[in-house]
Amino acid sequence: MKRCLFLPLLAALLVGAASAAGAPSNTARDAWRDVSPDNLVLIETKYGTVAVELAPDFAPGHVARMRKLLHAHFYDGLTFYRVIDGFVAQGGADQDTSATADAPVNPEILKTWPPMKAEFDATLPKGAVFTPLGNPDLVAPEVGYVNGFPVGRDPKDGKAWLIQCPGVFAFARDNADDTATTEFYIVIGEAPRRLDRNLTAFGRVIAGMQYVQKLNRGNPDVDSGVIQDIARRDPIIHMTLASDLPEKDRPHYQVMRTDSAAFAELLASKRNPAPEFYHRPGGFPNLDICGVSAPVRTVTP
Amino acid sequence: MKRCLFLPLLAALLVGAASAAGAPSNTARDAWRDVSPDNLVLIETKYGTVAVELAPDFAPGHVARMRKLLHAHFYDGLTFYRVIDGFVAQGGADQDTSATADAPVNPEILKTWPPMKAEFDATLPKGAVFTPLGNPDLVAPEVGYVNGFPVGRDPKDGKAWLIQCPGVFAFARDNADDTATTEFYIVIGEAPRRLDRNLTAFGRVIAGMQYVQKLNRGNPDVDSGVIQDIARRDPIIHMTLASDLPEKDRPHYQVMRTDSAAFAELLASKRNPAPEFYHRPGGFPNLDICGVSAPVRTVTP
Repeated sequence: MKRCLFLPLLAALLVGAASAAGAPSNTARDAWRDVSPDNLVLIETKYGTVAVELAPDFAPGHVARMRKLLHAHFYDGLTFYRVIDGFVAQGGADQDTSATADAPVNPEILKTWPPMKAEFDATLPKGAVFTPLGNPDLVAPEVGYVNGFPVGRDPKDGKAWLIQCPGVFAFARDNADDTATTEFYIVIGEAPRRLDRNLTAFGRVIAGMQYVQKLNRGNPDVDSGVIQDIARRDPIIHMTLASDLPEKDRPHYQVMRTDSAAFAELLASKRNPAPEFYHRPGGFPNLDICGVSAPVRTVTP
Repeated sequence: MKRCLFLPLLAALLVGAASAAGAPSNTARDAWRDVSPDNLVLIETKYGTVAVELAPDFAPGHVARMRKLLHAHFYDGLTFYRVIDGFVAQGGADQDTSATADAPVNPEILKTWPPMKAEFDATLPKGAVFTPLGNPDLVAPEVGYVNGFPVGRDPKDGKAWLIQCPGVFAFARDNADDTATTEFYIVIGEAPRRLDRNLTAFGRVIAGMQYVQKLNRGNPDVDSGVIQDIARRDPIIHMTLASDLPEKDRPHYQVMRTDSAAFAELLASKRNPAPEFYHRPGGFPNLDICGVSAPVRTVTP
């Protein structure tokens, strides 16, 4: 009881679009695309595995760096050392403090990962399809979706960027723009839009956000949220690129195409949610770009 | 490293405004108000205690019901039985399934809590101060803060309502408007604004959101997110109104007054975050009402 139509009709929509995960119809197959194992990052935590899809079109240099770090097993045994509730979960090698469960990271190792040129925005390749959200935004001149990612776009310079919605995957940096090296973060609260185009976002969590939300938090008033008690920092047990795994061990994800009829239907259902439950007239013409994400499902190949 | 000004200058602002929690200056004292023990709900989970401030001006009937439920220890031993990542954590007595760790709730007990008249919006008392956010919103005609709560307002009918930001505390209901009885929810993801004025919101979490985020999730595609394995539902160990506790056992919270100079300064710092770190010109004239919350602190009486 008390849950009738409270959740938007996503489940019904998915059933309508895909009939069943095991036996998709032709139409359904068209509405979904496979996530490439070269773009699939798996972060193993003690709570469960978090899956991130990389977006090389938006930040090719940062995606290449992340793949190299993963090939080198760089993150294995490091921690989520700075986690601020409602803001970000930051992981990797913190030079200032002990970043593993039992020892500081060797500064010599960090020297092999020099600072990168920032990629705050990008000119997308010709084939990229931008599907407008269909209403104004409070921050960006235009917002919409590219390949399942929430995106801002500026018609003046043609540049596009990943929006810092919950689940965005980005590199942290120092004060200067071109200073990101190895530390990454995941947004875990109401979208901090001031980070848009101010940090290099290069992917999004497609599964396992509930495990990111379980990570132990720091006190935001102490050392900028860095967890002081090292024993309370949750370890990154393994962090792996799916294409580095044997084929039989790779999970398979599909993301709903944001240029599909199924996704247009999802947006429409958010604008006019089920009248049995939502009784205020007028619906919701203006959606929050971070309030509607491209659905994700797992498939058996 | 890589955390310099990434967090907005809230810590610095609080120090500036309050100097120290133990010995506030006169100015600082003016910037904060005490949370009344009659409005303070403490939800004890195995992860930690969540503190909720009730907002009787917005939904007096629902606040009165919640206080009565708490006097009766109604929630003790029930569970968070429907938790959907990025959406809501719903707790209390679910009639359809076993809602405690080991037994269904007795339907006879539920009959003593009849459905309530919805309080989706309210005419605020004369003394209530509405502090406008200072920019348009995507959903509500006007948005701002009343007494620390994020609020929507319609100048046409003068009504105001709590916005469904992360941390909002509300009663769940069935399809019909006047059907809320005992089940409550807390928003745990990007603000689901379609719930604004569609459900009765009557408080907000002021501490312990990180414990709400640790709650075990259900699968949104199965039974609307109700956790099927009862052993995985996190118990509400105790849920208590602070004024029902002996005075010595009550925690003391203060909320920054949203009509204070300190809060205006906080809004300004969000619009123009530290230029050492944020390098895009123009700042952020349009803030998200759910992106700036009234700060909270604990005090020793």
